[in-house]
Amino acid sequence: MIVVVNNNAAKEQFENLVNWIEGQNVRVHISTGEFQTVLGLIGDTSRIDTELLEGLDIVSQVTRVTEPFKNANRKFHPENSYVEAGGVKLGDGHFGIIAGPCSIESEEQIIEVAKAVKAAGADFLRGGAFKPRTSPYDFQGLRADGLKLLLEAKKETGLPIVTEIMSAEHLPLFEDVDIIQVGARNMQNFEMLKELGKTKKPILIKRGLANTLKELLMSAEYIMSEGNENIILCERGIRTYETATRNTLDISAVPALHELSHLPVIVDPSHACGISRLVKPLALSAAAAGADGLMIEVHNNPQRALCDGAQSLTPEQFADTAKAVKRVIEAIKE
Amino acid sequence: MIVVVNNNAAKEQFENLVNWIEGQNVRVHISTGEFQTVLGLIGDTSRIDTELLEGLDIVSQVTRVTEPFKNANRKFHPENSYVEAGGVKLGDGHFGIIAGPCSIESEEQIIEVAKAVKAAGADFLRGGAFKPRTSPYDFQGLRADGLKLLLEAKKETGLPIVTEIMSAEHLPLFEDVDIIQVGARNMQNFEMLKELGKTKKPILIKRGLANTLKELLMSAEYIMSEGNENIILCERGIRTYETATRNTLDISAVPALHELSHLPVIVDPSHACGISRLVKPLALSAAAAGADGLMIEVHNNPQRALCDGAQSLTPEQFADTAKAVKRVIEAIKE
Amino acid sequence: MIVVVNNNAAKEQFENLVNWIEGQNVRVHISTGEFQTVLGLIGDTSRIDTELLEGLDIVSQVTRVTEPFKNANRKFHPENSYVEAGGVKLGDGHFGIIAGPCSIESEEQIIEVAKAVKAAGADFLRGGAFKPRTSPYDFQGLRADGLKLLLEAKKETGLPIVTEIMSAEHLPLFEDVDIIQVGARNMQNFEMLKELGKTKKPILIKRGLANTLKELLMSAEYIMSEGNENIILCERGIRTYETATRNTLDISAVPALHELSHLPVIVDPSHACGISRLVKPLALSAAAAGADGLMIEVHNNPQRALCDGAQSLTPEQFADTAKAVKRVIEAIKE
Amino acid sequence: MIVVVNNNAAKEQFENLVNWIEGQNVRVHISTGEFQTVLGLIGDTSRIDTELLEGLDIVSQVTRVTEPFKNANRKFHPENSYVEAGGVKLGDGHFGIIAGPCSIESEEQIIEVAKAVKAAGADFLRGGAFKPRTSPYDFQGLRADGLKLLLEAKKETGLPIVTEIMSAEHLPLFEDVDIIQVGARNMQNFEMLKELGKTKKPILIKRGLANTLKELLMSAEYIMSEGNENIILCERGIRTYETATRNTLDISAVPALHELSHLPVIVDPSHACGISRLVKPLALSAAAAGADGLMIEVHNNPQRALCDGAQSLTPEQFADTAKAVKRVIEAIKE
Repeated sequence: MIVVVNNNAAKEQFENLVNWIEGQNVRVHISTGEFQTVLGLIGDTSRIDTELLEGLDIVSQVTRVTEPFKNANRKFHPENSYVEAGGVKLGDGHFGIIAGPCSIESEEQIIEVAKAVKAAGADFLRGGAFKPRTSPYDFQGLRADGLKLLLEAKKETGLPIVTEIMSAEHLPLFEDVDIIQVGARNMQNFEMLKELGKTKKPILIKRGLANTLKELLMSAEYIMSEGNENIILCERGIRTYETATRNTLDISAVPALHELSHLPVIVDPSHACGISRLVKPLALSAAAAGADGLMIEVHNNPQRALCDGAQSLTPEQFADTAKAVKRVIEAIKE
Repeated sequence: MIVVVNNNAAKEQFENLVNWIEGQNVRVHISTGEFQTVLGLIGDTSRIDTELLEGLDIVSQVTRVTEPFKNANRKFHPENSYVEAGGVKLGDGHFGIIAGPCSIESEEQIIEVAKAVKAAGADFLRGGAFKPRTSPYDFQGLRADGLKLLLEAKKETGLPIVTEIMSAEHLPLFEDVDIIQVGARNMQNFEMLKELGKTKKPILIKRGLANTLKELLMSAEYIMSEGNENIILCERGIRTYETATRNTLDISAVPALHELSHLPVIVDPSHACGISRLVKPLALSAAAAGADGLMIEVHNNPQRALCDGAQSLTPEQFADTAKAVKRVIEAIKE
Repeated sequence: MIVVVNNNAAKEQFENLVNWIEGQNVRVHISTGEFQTVLGLIGDTSRIDTELLEGLDIVSQVTRVTEPFKNANRKFHPENSYVEAGGVKLGDGHFGIIAGPCSIESEEQIIEVAKAVKAAGADFLRGGAFKPRTSPYDFQGLRADGLKLLLEAKKETGLPIVTEIMSAEHLPLFEDVDIIQVGARNMQNFEMLKELGKTKKPILIKRGLANTLKELLMSAEYIMSEGNENIILCERGIRTYETATRNTLDISAVPALHELSHLPVIVDPSHACGISRLVKPLALSAAAAGADGLMIEVHNNPQRALCDGAQSLTPEQFADTAKAVKRVIEAIKE
Repeated sequence: MIVVVNNNAAKEQFENLVNWIEGQNVRVHISTGEFQTVLGLIGDTSRIDTELLEGLDIVSQVTRVTEPFKNANRKFHPENSYVEAGGVKLGDGHFGIIAGPCSIESEEQIIEVAKAVKAAGADFLRGGAFKPRTSPYDFQGLRADGLKLLLEAKKETGLPIVTEIMSAEHLPLFEDVDIIQVGARNMQNFEMLKELGKTKKPILIKRGLANTLKELLMSAEYIMSEGNENIILCERGIRTYETATRNTLDISAVPALHELSHLPVIVDPSHACGISRLVKPLALSAAAAGADGLMIEVHNNPQRALCDGAQSLTPEQFADTAKAVKRVIEAIKE
């Protein structure tokens, strides 16, 4: 870590700062320039709080040289990691497609979609039981009842299931869920992340709407530091000034996360754009950028069952997309 | 609500759409143009999900005309509301200053700061016991022990106290807290908001880093729709591309929220900028923009006790700021 | 266009508004609701200024139903258009790769790179003569001398050339340039756009760092409304809060622009990320998303000639990328 | 400047980098750590291009320690500077209010507004002759004719005038203009900035919609490095995801620019929010934050003359705002 100190700092303040840093078990290398003094911090700086240093009057800049995430960091784990859930691998060469409806509505619906996506090549079934909605007046999901229906669909098709958790108190309901999803709005619900870290369940964590890649990795670190290393990272679009799409898919996140971390990275093109017509080109672009998987919303009848159709594909559109994705994966291999 | 439908929509799709809308107990007024058809939805559209409509292939645009928040909406409650906590009012002409350290560190520290901010004119004492930190390796607060020390400081000074909650499971610990704060990262932790709505406690809710004013009001609505109308809104900076300050204080949020809602609006200049030197000018600007209060970090010795000094004022700086704020409040009255 | 008027508007204000709109040769359809009145504007609203309407006290919302761009709009030109420059087509099924160095440095350099990129499959040669730099102290390009060297390279290799213009006063120097580039910082230099519209030259216009897709199309419209319809749109990353990459490549812009407009859309992955290691995955993702071409920085010796190497590929890396891009184009065809 | 180099860099690459840096007349101080090597660059690094260094494979981070702007930098000019135009000072304790219509429409209009704003306490008259508009179909201003009318109003009232330039080719028309404005969209029209630097005219430069404070200062530096030091900086809102206001006024820019630079800083609340109702609270907040002046749109009849009324105040509203601003300036003095 590099700390730049103004030369107008009082001697006492400067010494207090250096002493405090050394008190954190970090060595300090001081080099004095014309207008400022540069401190080089050597050792384990992961526990040093940059925001606090930045706020000091005498400090004009703080720069991290090594990232504060350890477990998620590729530097310390150069090999790709993968997650295994319900007997299916995702990551390190295993491309995984997660598909299913936004919300679970009925037994008939979830089983019909599950069969359709399985036939079309999906590796995992998704379905929302607990739904985070901006408005308290919007449909909040079937909750515990929805989970039961999803388990039915798993039994019927053999597909491992993925579904979102919204409170650590609901964990007992998720015992038979194969991958637990942390939604974008809960990416920094740190108390819940810690609880998920105490389980051994694979966790799919979505990037928050205004979170950096490093913050996403720090949230993964919250889970991993409690002992659970089964993490899948998911890019699902960030919030920008552009309104042509619901969010802005940050496609560079895929290769950039692969550089920073060994964890598998998937993309959710459905939430990223919010428009079913754009899902296929974005799914293809994610595969071409090197993603380890996709999460795609599929509904059995988007046009009729209005209440989910927005960004969902029909099973036919999904089958067509999945086929094209596989061709792209082959094309980039060579 | 206005829904614009493409004229190339199949007749059946169009009829399905109109039937579905009418099924939500909303009347539909249809006007057909050369390139598109405009549906005017009349009635209570607060339960209609715009994102779902927007995603339909045949729909090119959806615009809300009335806001989906009811309880927080000034249209239905033209009078300013105020919150009363520990015998002190905030809002509707009662300007309230909340001050105290970022983190509670020791009994000595919190009591010393509490006395100092009281003497300098603070109306409420703040102090962090449960701390949301980006990194699991950063200090997480004294937690339950910190709450006890904060209650000591309340007893000692008589100041009502404000502190952050990070999980609904901790609610029993907050029984004697006067105002419960929901942090920016939990603004859309909807399960927790619902639980807070079932209490009668005043809730101070901070705007999320990438949340719109309307989403902030929808989060207030989550609490209010459960029966708790004691809400204070807090602008604390949003995330933008600018890096000169930690966040970008959206000062327009103050008059804009006052237009949209009857709820009191305060500003946290300390977190907004992350630099103690900028706290005073930003506090003054918030008062001048019509804020109902301020939340300011104050530490008894920012330079020594590094681990909090970043954006905190000394008690002397706080006293100077509080005095200037009061002069500004007088200046804008006339 | 839909204009929502508050019901508390004075009768006179309301009538003035309606009269003013009708004075713009647009019919007004009025429907009165409980809390507001909705005006439907029918006819050619492209000349009506939404910002002005939005600012009126009595207006609470303005929504465009048809886009204000005519010439660039796919609604009125359903067929894809293409640009032909130096005998080479780009768009409507003709995928075009533009490659070359960021800056032209010497005759030797530009000719060596030109030959290398031609051999590797480039369709056009790019090279910067006039360089827009944030700092007046950074290298500003060889300017007119650079253009001469670029023309040499064109003569030598037969590749049509693309280079950036920074002032309409320089137009006479661009007579033999095949495609004139408008940089991101000049996307809304409207006086220059008008001058470019008076030429017949193909214009490659880059999206500004904070510009919406609709603003990009309006800038294209500036050129087209003067009579020049030879436009290529270029997505090159937008500015967001994320700092892991220099900009955030908005990959959704490719399919979204294709929906809105008939103009060809290319992607510049080099400027979007600023890191050579990410150029290949982003180039592949652009091809997979349906882009009509790519603009890629290539340098003959990025490691030696520091002053350009940042985001440039070596000729070998470029050849490898170009081959993979072609495989992806085949893969998405079916 | 600090450059962090990966330890896996080849020896030759590393040496090339160090040689290249030393070739820029900068000394290099090397300190080698376990995972990376840190280069400290000592001397005049203002001509070293950080983006180029950042892009090198072997470099993982580049951090500037001294800012690359010299003339605008407070470090080298600790005293506040001011601008004098038409005999009126702005900056260094001289608060200046610039007021007038968005567009000049007629002699009657501009003279009427000029008299009204003068009576209400304005120090300068603004009025748009050349208008940058997103759409080529929107009103582009009266251009040269508008300038003539503005000069008439100056003669009539004695107020110095401020108006926007859109192309360096128009400079001869601006001979009698007191302050030349560079609009947000032209903040990085570097060719024009250089031409303005060759004049001695006071230049009011507006921050671009997606530009950082440091980029604004670099644009000021473009003008100053050509010899013209008469610069006023103007914050006018930046583009964010929030849509409740047209732009997001970055109020922290006022104190942050004052720290970084000695140049006067003013605020344009009218463009920042786009809603006349918010102009007064934002003007007050700017004064409270320490701005050196304001730029406010005033129209003689916003409700009738629709084509400008959006964000404009009436003369009465302006007089009321100007009075309150003066009270705030007094309040913050002590």
